[in-house]
Amino acid sequence: MTKPTDVHLPLLDDRPREECGIVGVTGVESASELVFLGLYALQHRGQEAAGICATNGGRTKLFKELGLVSDVFDAKRIASLDGSTALGHVRYSTAGDGQRVNAQPMVVRYAEGDLSIVHNGNITNAYTLRDQLVGEGAIFRSSSDSEVIVHLVARSRHRTIESQLRDALSFIEGAYALVVTVGDVMYAVRDPRGFRPLVLGELDGGHVVTSETCALDIMGADFVRDVRPGELVRLRAGRADSLHGVHPEEPAACVFELVYFARPDSSLWGVSVDRARRSLGRSLAREHPVEGDCVIAVPDSANSAALGYSEESGIPYELGLLRNHYVGRTFIRPTQADRDFAARIKYNPVREVLDGQRVVVVDDSIVRGTTSSSLVKFIRAAGAAEVHFRVASPPVRYPCYYGIDMPSREELLGATASVPEIAAGLGVDSLGYLSLEGMLEAVKEGGPYCSACFSGDYRAPLVDMAERR
Amino acid sequence: MTKPTDVHLPLLDDRPREECGIVGVTGVESASELVFLGLYALQHRGQEAAGICATNGGRTKLFKELGLVSDVFDAKRIASLDGSTALGHVRYSTAGDGQRVNAQPMVVRYAEGDLSIVHNGNITNAYTLRDQLVGEGAIFRSSSDSEVIVHLVARSRHRTIESQLRDALSFIEGAYALVVTVGDVMYAVRDPRGFRPLVLGELDGGHVVTSETCALDIMGADFVRDVRPGELVRLRAGRADSLHGVHPEEPAACVFELVYFARPDSSLWGVSVDRARRSLGRSLAREHPVEGDCVIAVPDSANSAALGYSEESGIPYELGLLRNHYVGRTFIRPTQADRDFAARIKYNPVREVLDGQRVVVVDDSIVRGTTSSSLVKFIRAAGAAEVHFRVASPPVRYPCYYGIDMPSREELLGATASVPEIAAGLGVDSLGYLSLEGMLEAVKEGGPYCSACFSGDYRAPLVDMAERR
Amino acid sequence: MTKPTDVHLPLLDDRPREECGIVGVTGVESASELVFLGLYALQHRGQEAAGICATNGGRTKLFKELGLVSDVFDAKRIASLDGSTALGHVRYSTAGDGQRVNAQPMVVRYAEGDLSIVHNGNITNAYTLRDQLVGEGAIFRSSSDSEVIVHLVARSRHRTIESQLRDALSFIEGAYALVVTVGDVMYAVRDPRGFRPLVLGELDGGHVVTSETCALDIMGADFVRDVRPGELVRLRAGRADSLHGVHPEEPAACVFELVYFARPDSSLWGVSVDRARRSLGRSLAREHPVEGDCVIAVPDSANSAALGYSEESGIPYELGLLRNHYVGRTFIRPTQADRDFAARIKYNPVREVLDGQRVVVVDDSIVRGTTSSSLVKFIRAAGAAEVHFRVASPPVRYPCYYGIDMPSREELLGATASVPEIAAGLGVDSLGYLSLEGMLEAVKEGGPYCSACFSGDYRAPLVDMAERR
Amino acid sequence: MTKPTDVHLPLLDDRPREECGIVGVTGVESASELVFLGLYALQHRGQEAAGICATNGGRTKLFKELGLVSDVFDAKRIASLDGSTALGHVRYSTAGDGQRVNAQPMVVRYAEGDLSIVHNGNITNAYTLRDQLVGEGAIFRSSSDSEVIVHLVARSRHRTIESQLRDALSFIEGAYALVVTVGDVMYAVRDPRGFRPLVLGELDGGHVVTSETCALDIMGADFVRDVRPGELVRLRAGRADSLHGVHPEEPAACVFELVYFARPDSSLWGVSVDRARRSLGRSLAREHPVEGDCVIAVPDSANSAALGYSEESGIPYELGLLRNHYVGRTFIRPTQADRDFAARIKYNPVREVLDGQRVVVVDDSIVRGTTSSSLVKFIRAAGAAEVHFRVASPPVRYPCYYGIDMPSREELLGATASVPEIAAGLGVDSLGYLSLEGMLEAVKEGGPYCSACFSGDYRAPLVDMAERR
Repeated sequence: MTKPTDVHLPLLDDRPREECGIVGVTGVESASELVFLGLYALQHRGQEAAGICATNGGRTKLFKELGLVSDVFDAKRIASLDGSTALGHVRYSTAGDGQRVNAQPMVVRYAEGDLSIVHNGNITNAYTLRDQLVGEGAIFRSSSDSEVIVHLVARSRHRTIESQLRDALSFIEGAYALVVTVGDVMYAVRDPRGFRPLVLGELDGGHVVTSETCALDIMGADFVRDVRPGELVRLRAGRADSLHGVHPEEPAACVFELVYFARPDSSLWGVSVDRARRSLGRSLAREHPVEGDCVIAVPDSANSAALGYSEESGIPYELGLLRNHYVGRTFIRPTQADRDFAARIKYNPVREVLDGQRVVVVDDSIVRGTTSSSLVKFIRAAGAAEVHFRVASPPVRYPCYYGIDMPSREELLGATASVPEIAAGLGVDSLGYLSLEGMLEAVKEGGPYCSACFSGDYRAPLVDMAERR
Repeated sequence: MTKPTDVHLPLLDDRPREECGIVGVTGVESASELVFLGLYALQHRGQEAAGICATNGGRTKLFKELGLVSDVFDAKRIASLDGSTALGHVRYSTAGDGQRVNAQPMVVRYAEGDLSIVHNGNITNAYTLRDQLVGEGAIFRSSSDSEVIVHLVARSRHRTIESQLRDALSFIEGAYALVVTVGDVMYAVRDPRGFRPLVLGELDGGHVVTSETCALDIMGADFVRDVRPGELVRLRAGRADSLHGVHPEEPAACVFELVYFARPDSSLWGVSVDRARRSLGRSLAREHPVEGDCVIAVPDSANSAALGYSEESGIPYELGLLRNHYVGRTFIRPTQADRDFAARIKYNPVREVLDGQRVVVVDDSIVRGTTSSSLVKFIRAAGAAEVHFRVASPPVRYPCYYGIDMPSREELLGATASVPEIAAGLGVDSLGYLSLEGMLEAVKEGGPYCSACFSGDYRAPLVDMAERR
Repeated sequence: MTKPTDVHLPLLDDRPREECGIVGVTGVESASELVFLGLYALQHRGQEAAGICATNGGRTKLFKELGLVSDVFDAKRIASLDGSTALGHVRYSTAGDGQRVNAQPMVVRYAEGDLSIVHNGNITNAYTLRDQLVGEGAIFRSSSDSEVIVHLVARSRHRTIESQLRDALSFIEGAYALVVTVGDVMYAVRDPRGFRPLVLGELDGGHVVTSETCALDIMGADFVRDVRPGELVRLRAGRADSLHGVHPEEPAACVFELVYFARPDSSLWGVSVDRARRSLGRSLAREHPVEGDCVIAVPDSANSAALGYSEESGIPYELGLLRNHYVGRTFIRPTQADRDFAARIKYNPVREVLDGQRVVVVDDSIVRGTTSSSLVKFIRAAGAAEVHFRVASPPVRYPCYYGIDMPSREELLGATASVPEIAAGLGVDSLGYLSLEGMLEAVKEGGPYCSACFSGDYRAPLVDMAERR
Repeated sequence: MTKPTDVHLPLLDDRPREECGIVGVTGVESASELVFLGLYALQHRGQEAAGICATNGGRTKLFKELGLVSDVFDAKRIASLDGSTALGHVRYSTAGDGQRVNAQPMVVRYAEGDLSIVHNGNITNAYTLRDQLVGEGAIFRSSSDSEVIVHLVARSRHRTIESQLRDALSFIEGAYALVVTVGDVMYAVRDPRGFRPLVLGELDGGHVVTSETCALDIMGADFVRDVRPGELVRLRAGRADSLHGVHPEEPAACVFELVYFARPDSSLWGVSVDRARRSLGRSLAREHPVEGDCVIAVPDSANSAALGYSEESGIPYELGLLRNHYVGRTFIRPTQADRDFAARIKYNPVREVLDGQRVVVVDDSIVRGTTSSSLVKFIRAAGAAEVHFRVASPPVRYPCYYGIDMPSREELLGATASVPEIAAGLGVDSLGYLSLEGMLEAVKEGGPYCSACFSGDYRAPLVDMAERR
């Protein structure tokens, strides 16, 4: 008989994984306590490692470890990270034990003192720059692309930190939202296309910079505005100065943040995530109407879209799938005959809701399709008469190179099968994806958007990919 | 400045806490793996301690520890608990560190071999029996009332285990759902009024007994039937024999399981929890109609009731409060000026949904009222024009002595204030509780019910309370 | 290639293992701090589990765990064990993980309140009594024989605790040194033959009872006297009252405590351990003289005996073997070709001392002989011209049933081979064991002794062994 | 009442602390297993952190953590560090939690691949070089001076690794024994004066480089020779090639290694440590004879010297102080009235040996003198008639800047008090230190030596000290 082995539940999942959530607080006493709360609110953006650093009188203390925010930090640890300037980071990391080295914040000593950095995004010429830097004698400790940025800053011949940052950014391609501290001065910057979100808030005379507005809410901070693409914001002594960072390009905000990643109570680039998803759901209902008895969501990320579908179609919204939120470690058998195990430990159908019904299932997106396939089986086993699957975004056909960890093209269901083939594979009575135009129209209040994962239209140069071919 | 200290998030909560969830599996290889899955599904019934014991060839191995199921057990630990008969338990424990001794299962050696027991409920004459047993030379290790049952079994002069169990039960008053194993034979029993749920399932020629049907689902087991009040079921060698346990009384199923505790995907005493809550919500809408722009739930326990309210009233259902599911440890300041901290770390309002709206908030119940009060503030701060609070059960006015950990009478909001006073305290524009009759009518498909926490009508004698006065 | 697995170093050892060290402190504030120090000094008597309980106002708190004293307890843990009466225990446990249940102190609730007990020794009719008690309805949690004592006390029909203890002891055969507390009253008792040591001390108006005087020294307590065989000492409110416990028999103090177990800075039954070992070494030199260039000890337990041998023989004492004291976990390969691995990780020869020399190696005793065999190889490899092995006690030929964990007879080298065979097996030039008479003569200042492990003359009845044949 | 707090026992000690022990193994399968054993033997050289890295097919895996070797590594961890080339390090670190970053090995990625390094010693121009490197854009992660070396290698304009190493070394002043790996090639190098030891061994066709020969013994490796001052040894494919490293200076081997640090079963620079200490003890007896009844050592580091004193003086050697080897965590009260606590938990006098005697106590050295002072009190309390303190080295008067962590001058007893003042402070009847000439004469078989801590004659330039004045 085969022996079971441990596995972390998120690794059983077939969802794409955000790379990071970031928070910076400056000008507020016990800044690390606020950063802790902020990370807590951003936990959905990265569940494998968490870190906080705090600066007091020029000296920076750092703690980072694999695990959830609430596992990594306790009151004593937070209290030890004293000072009125602090950075925090949550991360999804692809590898297991021992990859502590890639966790953030990264803190280094360079000519101007301690420099700390947190980063959300993906540098598309990181390997190329790295080879160049290594050739000049630079030493790397991690495989993180944040380390490339730090080296570029340290090697800049400019004299002020602002100029050094600007100099470093001029070499970098791709997607980045960065927060950097040198002493008690904090800098926030977004790449020229603004792929990844970064918002500015105020609190008790100090400032907060973070990935999503929900982190402002938990701290009790007031939203001020988005950091603009290409902008370099300097936060010092209670003032926020807008400086030139890099020359902005045509904006390309990540539409997948609205579709799946961000928390529905956040607003990104001026759009309420909940409202955006409702709108996607309504458009989906218009594009792919069907006769059904109930609309159910794949909880929780598709709740808003399903509600939108229900509103538009007039088909009642029901709670037909329950999600177990006590995620953590489980075990699997190497020869797991039961391919639905991962989905079953997370979702359970509500038989009384589904039995005998024509069920419209709304999901936000399909990446690999393994969970979708299990869910359809569960819903049928619970007695559903018909299963109509509706997806509130187009088929995911291309990997993201701008900060979202997606499988390779071969593993993307939308890249390897046509919609009818997918419908047959899932065993549904009908399948409808929202069109690319429909999606972009539904969220047009924000944008313009990057929709490369759906369209293949990559907006920032993929330097490493070209080099490595 | 005050120092922060650690606190477990559930302890910041003002919700009542279930005492236990239980699972037994017999006649299936690697029974402890299935028990692990079952406990995982029952995690909502107790989050402070978890334990599993397994019997192989007459020898029982046990592991129990404070923590969530996925923290306490890993693949190696589960593999070490070998055998085809296993019991599991999750528990809410009132005290912190060092109370490992009260965790379950309890495993003892007595004349017939290793006896293991898991228990959900509360024995109302436990102290009285304990004093008596101690006077006869019995030694107690814990303050758990399960230990009283074990002593009664061990001291019985009867010869068969069935008779010993029956003898022991004849002394016991109160609420209990028990699973007991002696060697590879498993016994399941419910008290004469059936306060607490216990269901029987089948799997691969073996049997499962557990608190809720959602545990059967995750194991892939088939539901057979409820264990009946007073019934003693013997599970042995693939057979389930119904034996006499104790003389049944007028049934009194805990209505609070339907109102709040049980998972919506479970069915208890023949009633779908989701359907019951929908029905409660619809009755609530009929009893307390109001003009509103949207209905929102306090997630997740009130989701079904809110949907019911929306259906019946025609007011659209919205997702106006977001719940952060990454619960765990946080810290608090001893002089926490911010009384809303506990609620804020858990719930966040969605401003775009609430701004300018007349909001109908549906919750399942109000116990202490502290969270409700914070939520009303959040909703107003998010711009709500009016806040109408609706509760899908009557005011909680009396403590439960049948297995639910509730605060004392003085701390129950419904026991110390009238509805108008409560409305004023919460700062709402209107407040409506479902009536006792309305509640019982809505769930009449099951029952009869114990509703002592609402009505004070205690159905089993409160022996210890009388003795101790 | 085979995979390495973890092993605790003491388990690689072929030494006999003491079962326990015990400490009780009463009438002194922060008693648990003193108990911690005492256990620290007694760590050599048991390295697998440690426990402390403390009583304050009738309520007893307990913490016990697998591990060394300094791993199990920290300042916070000690501070939580408040009160002026405390017990402590260190234990060697034969099994690994999960055997926490057999650690001590044992704390139970019985008719008179919380009763706590620590025990050093072995009850020779424990199984027989256990069967009897179980037949009467007693429930056992552990396989520890201390639990038998507790049941006998709880079931006694006598009215005072003293009478209950006396009643319980009247059933028990074998070896025991016990300390018991009920509330703030402490009782110390030794079996009628006084196999195991137990000494009484005074400190700041309170009392200490413990296995060895070195524990008194570390606390700064003054030695008062030995607890006498059969005596029951009651320590209460600063007074020590000598009561009748059980009728004393011909004393039989464990000679192996002097030979190997006790710390050389302790005095047992009026004999300095260091002096006793020096005397054993001198007698050994007289019985087994040899021409040699240096005398070396197997450190550290044979240091004193080797020094005695050197004094008597005039052959210089040298430090020829070094012992690594950083014991802990290591790993072994299942197919370990290298049978000397266990010894090599612990001992290293000093080549410059041994090269070209005729070496007299003095050890305190030989049990299995595996370490001895490795050491002889190491010494030869370091260049010794001749190796003469001298043992400061007779061959160990019989298992101990009075509290020392020895291998079964088949594994005792002295039981399965003659001295010449042993000499040949070890590969030494000569081998000499001290004679039984020589040993007893050398330590005659104390005694009379139990020397059953050398002679087979068991002084207390072996009831269980007879029953179980 | 004051609360106790935790303290690690070594921190209560007033001994100087070695900075490191290092091991490298190449050309042997499962090299990390051998490195583990080697570190285990070198544990006395650093007890606060341990690390191992292993290289397989160009990829290097690293694990390092605070704690003892046996706490940090288990079989699974060792097995994960696969490959035939591995480095290990044990370290004493001055700071507590969070200083993981300064543990070694250090592994970096630079132009030639993964470079790993372990270092024992102290670079005396580290700060000066660091400032220079930082000015050129180098980024530092730690405060370790090993990082300076790595940067120098990475920035070298030379093309071969040998030349880069040589280039880097040409900038460095002070004391260093280094082992470096790049891929499967290992380099070992000692500073031009050879302050710190480094020996070369052979094993199964591969090579070992390590601080002391006792690490070769535990692995079963054969000693080949010392790495010579200034020499660069390349170990590759079973060959050891001696290359030029830096131009050698007048040798200055650390005499304190022989006096106190090294294990007595090691040989350093051709001298047996045990023999050297015996010789120091004999010289001490000649320089400072006294009438006494017994000679006792402060165990274990002074055992050999005490034996030498006994031999030369004819006064019998006795075991008068017992040392408890179960070191670990203990607790202290902030207002510890008992200044002898730290010594008492570690040492206990043997009353029967000391009572009424004129005792000659031999210690290897006195640094702060606090332990010595406690020991004299203990010995007197045990009844000694006279206490004559003898120290087998001169007074320690100057801090070491070559790799030994000593207190500042103000805390060195020998720097702030004359010998008669010290005698009076310790409360001894007489006090004798071995003279500088006597010490150097006794160990003249090796050398020439650095004796800066006794004489103030610093042999390598103290660049940072001069710069920072």
